[in-house]
Amino acid sequence: MSASQVNVTPAAAQRPFFVGLDVGGTNIKIGIVDNAGQTLAYDSIPTEQERGAEDACVRMAAVVRQLIEKNGINAKDVVQVGIATPGPMDIAQGMILRPGNLPGWHDFPIRDRVSHHMGLPVTFANDANAAAYGEFWSGAGKQYHSLVLLTLGTGIGGGIIIGDTLVEGEHSCGSECGHILINPAPDAPMDSLGKRGSLEAHCNATAVVDRALAALGSATVTSLAKRRAAGVEITPRVVAEEAEKGDAVARGIIMETGYWLAIGIVTFIHTIDPDAVVLGGAMTFGGYGSEIGRAFLEHIRDEVRPRLLEPLRDTVKIEFASLGGDAGYIGAAGLARLEYQKKR
Amino acid sequence: MSASQVNVTPAAAQRPFFVGLDVGGTNIKIGIVDNAGQTLAYDSIPTEQERGAEDACVRMAAVVRQLIEKNGINAKDVVQVGIATPGPMDIAQGMILRPGNLPGWHDFPIRDRVSHHMGLPVTFANDANAAAYGEFWSGAGKQYHSLVLLTLGTGIGGGIIIGDTLVEGEHSCGSECGHILINPAPDAPMDSLGKRGSLEAHCNATAVVDRALAALGSATVTSLAKRRAAGVEITPRVVAEEAEKGDAVARGIIMETGYWLAIGIVTFIHTIDPDAVVLGGAMTFGGYGSEIGRAFLEHIRDEVRPRLLEPLRDTVKIEFASLGGDAGYIGAAGLARLEYQKKR
Repeated sequence: MSASQVNVTPAAAQRPFFVGLDVGGTNIKIGIVDNAGQTLAYDSIPTEQERGAEDACVRMAAVVRQLIEKNGINAKDVVQVGIATPGPMDIAQGMILRPGNLPGWHDFPIRDRVSHHMGLPVTFANDANAAAYGEFWSGAGKQYHSLVLLTLGTGIGGGIIIGDTLVEGEHSCGSECGHILINPAPDAPMDSLGKRGSLEAHCNATAVVDRALAALGSATVTSLAKRRAAGVEITPRVVAEEAEKGDAVARGIIMETGYWLAIGIVTFIHTIDPDAVVLGGAMTFGGYGSEIGRAFLEHIRDEVRPRLLEPLRDTVKIEFASLGGDAGYIGAAGLARLEYQKKR
Repeated sequence: MSASQVNVTPAAAQRPFFVGLDVGGTNIKIGIVDNAGQTLAYDSIPTEQERGAEDACVRMAAVVRQLIEKNGINAKDVVQVGIATPGPMDIAQGMILRPGNLPGWHDFPIRDRVSHHMGLPVTFANDANAAAYGEFWSGAGKQYHSLVLLTLGTGIGGGIIIGDTLVEGEHSCGSECGHILINPAPDAPMDSLGKRGSLEAHCNATAVVDRALAALGSATVTSLAKRRAAGVEITPRVVAEEAEKGDAVARGIIMETGYWLAIGIVTFIHTIDPDAVVLGGAMTFGGYGSEIGRAFLEHIRDEVRPRLLEPLRDTVKIEFASLGGDAGYIGAAGLARLEYQKKR
């Protein structure tokens, strides 16, 4: 059990409590979260997806029971479970459909199976949407009424929240923010789904690497080129490291990525007019903790601002997320809480 | 009083009733709408904006009193007023700010002044948002849980509705659908606000006319070119007329406009995942009533479909609006009803 996430004792926590589950291709994060969005118990287990979805449900339930026992939590205070998974999914039916990173977990009624094994009602959500709700409830968006979260990584995910409304869509495809079209040029890059000109195609990890390889060409003079020549695989992390150390080519690659994100962010702002756009995920280039992360954010703000309608220019915030990898399970717990409250 | 809008008698209408006001640059539409979205009394008056906003409030109140008297409506059944105006506005404060087509109506507290003159609580909304709610409540979106309305004309307006949530935004700029960015090319067209690459810049009336003039060049062989040579001003209506008669150039212009709309529609669908995208406004090229209107819609559907995520391809509808110019006042009345219900 990692203690880093736990920020309230069971005695000090606000009742009732909610279980948050965030199922990824590698790990499953499991937290017990109080009514104020604080974590009172946490663990993670390997997904071991090859053992199948039912097996994972059994193991998640066992961990939750252990967390309750070990921490002296009254099981009756735990009233509802939230589970977040990658899409595609059928939220209304509680079905996980054909997630790319969970082969074999096809058409599985995960909501009802988790409910069966835990003996509690379960709320089911898309992982990026849950992360957005986590940031909204307990993270960077805590003081806001609405936000758009973009998760930057291998894919570009998103979550849109307007008050108590999570934009999940009529067909479980709401807030698919990476799939907006920002560039109709016939030679625009394609994303993993073969869609040309999408935000994801311009801003995901592959786009950054492709941009780096194109920028380097056959150059060997920059530090980024030297690392490549030394056999280092060019990843967004390597680009960020070299940019932080002052490599101009690496910096340019990150700024160009920021430019394309800005184009998409203008569209989200003019569609939703949220209090804030929040950027999370692995590919924030160090976030607030690095000079290049802060410069990346500042560049995005500078590119967005002049493109906005006048009343939005100095009002809509653009910020980094604050919960890191915890946003998903906290948000899943928060969505469970929302459903629990609606029933009462 | 136009009888065309009236579709229920006061005796048959469902109580309570709501006043809907749709303030435009030329006319103000005034309806009394029942609890089921049916119109039981209607009139319109010239805006005469030069007489000022306060004068318009006095005249609107007088017309509402007349409509109540003339139609034998019990004044006590009329419980709330909705008023829709062009932006920019401050919805929370009930202020109309600096509308381009109502010069002089600057920073006017229209919600409270209408309330003062009518002696009823007033709900204030953006005109495109109200039109979206009208279509949602009583028009093309009646059977849906969510929709995105695009109004096509001099500008491209929009309204997004998700259940009972109208996306008005935190700064009264939600659903500004014409201002999403669809084309980052440095030579992309500019819209009326000087923004390059927006949906509006590619699809409004000016864009259609510019496209026509560029397509014609110095040609005189097509019927569209002949009308121009005869001194006819090229407008979207003229383009639609010639396209309907078979002019290939005119048809191509309309199809190209449809292509750009399709790019924007993909973005709205991947952001909101609504039941339907509904197209209204003056520039639907005849809508369902003309061959070219139907071909325009079919072309949009054909361009959108292959660009969508797979679960959305055969599920999200793209349709024409059905209430025409009545959508605004009906929607304003519907939003008044929503607020009235929330108070109870």
